[in-house]
Amino acid sequence: MLLHDDRLFPADPVTRGIARRLYATVRDLPIVSPHGHTDPRWFAENLPFPDPATLLVKPDHYIFRMLYSQGVRLEQLGIARKDGGEVETDPRKIWDLFAKHWYLFRGTPTRLWFEHALSSVFGINERLSPESADRIYDKIAAKLAEPELRPRALFERFRIEAISTTEGALDDLKWHDMIRDSGWGGKVVTAYRPDSVVDPEFEGFADNLDQFGTLTGEDVTSWTGYLAAHRQRRAYFIERGATSSDHGHATARTANLSTAESEKLFAKILKGKFSANDADLFRGQMLTEMAKMSLEDGLVVQIHPGSSRNHNPWLFETFGRDMGADIPSQTDYVTALKPLLDAVGNEPNLTVIAFTLDETSYSRELAPLAGHYPALKLGPGWWFLDAPEAMLRFRELTTETAGFYNTVGFNDDTRAYLSIPARHDVARRCDCAYLAKLVAEHRLDEDEAAEVAHDLAYRLAKEAYKL
Amino acid sequence: MLLHDDRLFPADPVTRGIARRLYATVRDLPIVSPHGHTDPRWFAENLPFPDPATLLVKPDHYIFRMLYSQGVRLEQLGIARKDGGEVETDPRKIWDLFAKHWYLFRGTPTRLWFEHALSSVFGINERLSPESADRIYDKIAAKLAEPELRPRALFERFRIEAISTTEGALDDLKWHDMIRDSGWGGKVVTAYRPDSVVDPEFEGFADNLDQFGTLTGEDVTSWTGYLAAHRQRRAYFIERGATSSDHGHATARTANLSTAESEKLFAKILKGKFSANDADLFRGQMLTEMAKMSLEDGLVVQIHPGSSRNHNPWLFETFGRDMGADIPSQTDYVTALKPLLDAVGNEPNLTVIAFTLDETSYSRELAPLAGHYPALKLGPGWWFLDAPEAMLRFRELTTETAGFYNTVGFNDDTRAYLSIPARHDVARRCDCAYLAKLVAEHRLDEDEAAEVAHDLAYRLAKEAYKL
Amino acid sequence: MLLHDDRLFPADPVTRGIARRLYATVRDLPIVSPHGHTDPRWFAENLPFPDPATLLVKPDHYIFRMLYSQGVRLEQLGIARKDGGEVETDPRKIWDLFAKHWYLFRGTPTRLWFEHALSSVFGINERLSPESADRIYDKIAAKLAEPELRPRALFERFRIEAISTTEGALDDLKWHDMIRDSGWGGKVVTAYRPDSVVDPEFEGFADNLDQFGTLTGEDVTSWTGYLAAHRQRRAYFIERGATSSDHGHATARTANLSTAESEKLFAKILKGKFSANDADLFRGQMLTEMAKMSLEDGLVVQIHPGSSRNHNPWLFETFGRDMGADIPSQTDYVTALKPLLDAVGNEPNLTVIAFTLDETSYSRELAPLAGHYPALKLGPGWWFLDAPEAMLRFRELTTETAGFYNTVGFNDDTRAYLSIPARHDVARRCDCAYLAKLVAEHRLDEDEAAEVAHDLAYRLAKEAYKL
Repeated sequence: MLLHDDRLFPADPVTRGIARRLYATVRDLPIVSPHGHTDPRWFAENLPFPDPATLLVKPDHYIFRMLYSQGVRLEQLGIARKDGGEVETDPRKIWDLFAKHWYLFRGTPTRLWFEHALSSVFGINERLSPESADRIYDKIAAKLAEPELRPRALFERFRIEAISTTEGALDDLKWHDMIRDSGWGGKVVTAYRPDSVVDPEFEGFADNLDQFGTLTGEDVTSWTGYLAAHRQRRAYFIERGATSSDHGHATARTANLSTAESEKLFAKILKGKFSANDADLFRGQMLTEMAKMSLEDGLVVQIHPGSSRNHNPWLFETFGRDMGADIPSQTDYVTALKPLLDAVGNEPNLTVIAFTLDETSYSRELAPLAGHYPALKLGPGWWFLDAPEAMLRFRELTTETAGFYNTVGFNDDTRAYLSIPARHDVARRCDCAYLAKLVAEHRLDEDEAAEVAHDLAYRLAKEAYKL
Repeated sequence: MLLHDDRLFPADPVTRGIARRLYATVRDLPIVSPHGHTDPRWFAENLPFPDPATLLVKPDHYIFRMLYSQGVRLEQLGIARKDGGEVETDPRKIWDLFAKHWYLFRGTPTRLWFEHALSSVFGINERLSPESADRIYDKIAAKLAEPELRPRALFERFRIEAISTTEGALDDLKWHDMIRDSGWGGKVVTAYRPDSVVDPEFEGFADNLDQFGTLTGEDVTSWTGYLAAHRQRRAYFIERGATSSDHGHATARTANLSTAESEKLFAKILKGKFSANDADLFRGQMLTEMAKMSLEDGLVVQIHPGSSRNHNPWLFETFGRDMGADIPSQTDYVTALKPLLDAVGNEPNLTVIAFTLDETSYSRELAPLAGHYPALKLGPGWWFLDAPEAMLRFRELTTETAGFYNTVGFNDDTRAYLSIPARHDVARRCDCAYLAKLVAEHRLDEDEAAEVAHDLAYRLAKEAYKL
Repeated sequence: MLLHDDRLFPADPVTRGIARRLYATVRDLPIVSPHGHTDPRWFAENLPFPDPATLLVKPDHYIFRMLYSQGVRLEQLGIARKDGGEVETDPRKIWDLFAKHWYLFRGTPTRLWFEHALSSVFGINERLSPESADRIYDKIAAKLAEPELRPRALFERFRIEAISTTEGALDDLKWHDMIRDSGWGGKVVTAYRPDSVVDPEFEGFADNLDQFGTLTGEDVTSWTGYLAAHRQRRAYFIERGATSSDHGHATARTANLSTAESEKLFAKILKGKFSANDADLFRGQMLTEMAKMSLEDGLVVQIHPGSSRNHNPWLFETFGRDMGADIPSQTDYVTALKPLLDAVGNEPNLTVIAFTLDETSYSRELAPLAGHYPALKLGPGWWFLDAPEAMLRFRELTTETAGFYNTVGFNDDTRAYLSIPARHDVARRCDCAYLAKLVAEHRLDEDEAAEVAHDLAYRLAKEAYKL
């Protein structure tokens, strides 16, 4: 059996018994997935997924970065080179290479997610190995041809109540329109991610701005017009269900400049003659602008800072972005968020959700900030912090000061559609394990723990994200 | 039952058994409270405490910051506005609002402390909820009228062997005199906290200095006179039982300037024309001066750094300081403490106790420093680090390098008088739980663990603070 | 009994049962000790070790720093003063003083190592105390006279398959030659540690360079000649078995300057007119040069950064270096290692092993870097991070992102020869305890865990270090 009923529960029998009872009450709750990167086209077209390697290996940076770290070349995994150079095209060969290295994932969350999908989606209950690789490949491939493996059928089978994709400010959202027009009842909303027109150091920023102007009919060469263009796009996104914006800057820096200062900075940015600090300041100012717009239009602001993107220049030149070479870096929040919090932190009707890739900020900065400011909430452990151990540390480091109710439940943040139920299941199990410990140590009664378990699995995400 | 006998003990039966046995040997030890913020006036006048809301809700920043973070306005909790604006005055309404939000504290130490006080001081054994709120209010109010709830009666009932309050350098200590003159036997000592005359950025610093001069008759416009004034006040405090000084700077920076440099810096400070760096340097120099004075008069030096005070300017303007908006920030010790340690770190008869709000410094900086320098000891987990999980991390991160005997037992650091027994009880239980694990894993024998448990609960604090 | 069979295993019976079974499969594996500081002279001469105090107390900075922190003077422990001043010379008095303070080590790894040696090497099974001190001293002293306590006999008894010492670039390696020529079969190799000729701030750097030139016959006043001298010494070390180089800089900074820039910087360094930043840059450049040489000659590069050496100037002046006053400091890797990784990070045939004294970098920086770059591996918890708790944190913080297979097993990094089996035993037990938890929580099957346990205890170190 790949999936044991008691997986992730503490071994102590009393604690495990409590965890089981708590988990039983949340196991089958619908999935609310307020932040992620699934492709809306899947739900719009509802076509079958391709072969196992193209579905499960090639697009998953958790998987190929681990193989790369052990000497497998990305070409061997069929990942396209920018120069069009030769790469492996036989999905079965890619799959076999993956299976040969599957042992590398022992003890990782990828292992948990992958085996959950194997078992619950494909009915496979043997371990992946060089020996079983072809047999498993064949089973998956056969299943993928069946109608119940289509995106919409899985949506229902996964009990997804609502899912948010993420689109850039310039996206026409045609897939979302197509979903809406199809009459299908699945709730797939978008989120406003304006990095490409907010970050002066984004590839093609000047062109992006031009397009932004064309798209909105605003004069984006003036500060006022630029902000108006954002307002317009936000409204456009909101019409397609968006309830949040999302911002992935290298730092958590915010700013609250005067209009005159903002205009001057924007002019500098437009001229293209700006320093790295100017760019960072501009991104910071835009976070505060977005939060201020949220006071009007109600979008939840998500701040996803601290990733040092494209750390490996050779890899970036050869294969492009998102190839597993984004590395976290130390992230300050106390000073960085102050300008934004000074401006809007005391607003009880605003929700700003801060994430981190730097755990050291949990007990020192993020929990104290979220445990004070009405507008600020803490996002769950994210990316390099999504293992069961990291989820446990998140609770241990933040509950003292922020409690459970300044956090916002779980979000899976994934483009790996088939892993979504697994990720929510892992989060539910880990939260129940944490709560079971509190109950076993007589720090919380079991009826209260059950209420918290339900809140963490379902209600908090739904309410924080207005889904 | 609110309080289970086994609370905070690990669920594993063997480990729990050991923890129970260890705890039984320290449960009833007297309380030594070497650092805190109770009001000496309580012990001087020995008047009844006011209503439940005024006693338990309004003065507790742990409580009102959490409610504020969830959208409750401080006015609703009866907290005075600086502009004299209207606030709630009905204690029962405040209490009911608090009860309605009590669920927010699930999993927090506030929950543990509050329920301990409910049960052990007021004999209340039902959970606070909107339904039970009025009933509990009435019981507390009735009890508060009884003589055994007066400050001195509680002092004895709590088995407090010695408690230290904290007073500013300008305080006349009249309440301490009144306690002494009353003939009551309770040991209530003061501690010398000179921030208001040491920190050039303290509100009213210039006026404070004037008063410092008047009070001492020293010429505090000269560096020599200024230091003499400190010596005089320290002596005055020592006469009222003080055994320690306490310093709450934004950083742990210390300095060891020459007399000429110090004079020059002091002159600059006096003129009011100093940079933020000058102010920080002056605070740092004064830490070293205080440590040097301690070589003469024996006061223990407590360094409480790393709090970014009044992070929320709107709140500060509207309600003033200590309103829950103090946020920790990253704190360096290795470089910061070096000048002081270079000067006096090798003195075996000096005790400098360092605290932190930044856990990342435990294994990297504080344990290695305290595990080497004879003069340096580690204070316990503090403020945002006072949950059971944080206490456990403190031991796990420091014992390797500093052992148990370069730490100084527990201190409660609280103005919430009724929570003092609860806080010491939590600390004793957590230390016993940690020790029980060492015993269960055959890393320590139980007789030794019992000795350590006693040291951590009682002896180390008493000896380190000379109480 | 000092050593319980189940020591360091979790108390939960199911988990302990798994841990026991896993440990049984690795307990008796040979020791591969790829990084350490034993004295090759011991193995060359094979003379008896001196008295208990000289063997076990005086050279162990873990021991004397703890005693020093509690007011014992180093003179009382017989540690030589640089001025030749009087120190204790009676080993029994030193031993008695140590025994009197033995309780300070409760809960520390030193306790585990020391008692393991007492029991397994000397057959002593009573606890050290003032009462037992003389009895234990006598037993050890008697044993030390026996032939099976000679270095080579212990080597075999400890089942050491290979051990690496560490020598400076100027060392003639005569002891290694003597070992080789002796015909004894023990595998004792050296490692190339060029700090004294690479770090411009090393004591006697200019003289060291002169000697470097004389030794190699290269013109070390030219950049090309200087690099050639390194190549030559590396080859000399490789002939004596070296498979790695080792670099202990204050930071992890690396650089990848052009040849012209390197020549210019080197010229500046040679003139002695360089800033602290120049020195750091030069050390950083040399790390990259060493890695590039490794592409040719195959040496594994070990980076041991982040120790603030000789933090206590009085101690340094009085007793010299390595007296327990090295303190970790915050260490950046993401930015610091980038130049080196840009240059050689994608080389699958290179192995660079990074260590840290700053745990905050594990989940944020080191695991993400090692989980991506083919050339980078993570060294185990080290020095202030060698307690069981720290070893557990290492796995909990790195496995998510780097897995087990981007780590390199255990290394003891010690000059305390008798503690080597204890240290490996602690590491094996801790890894088995961690794996047992994964199995008990149904995250890994027991057959897989056994394979990982074997890899961590033996194979990974052997393969990573090519021993």
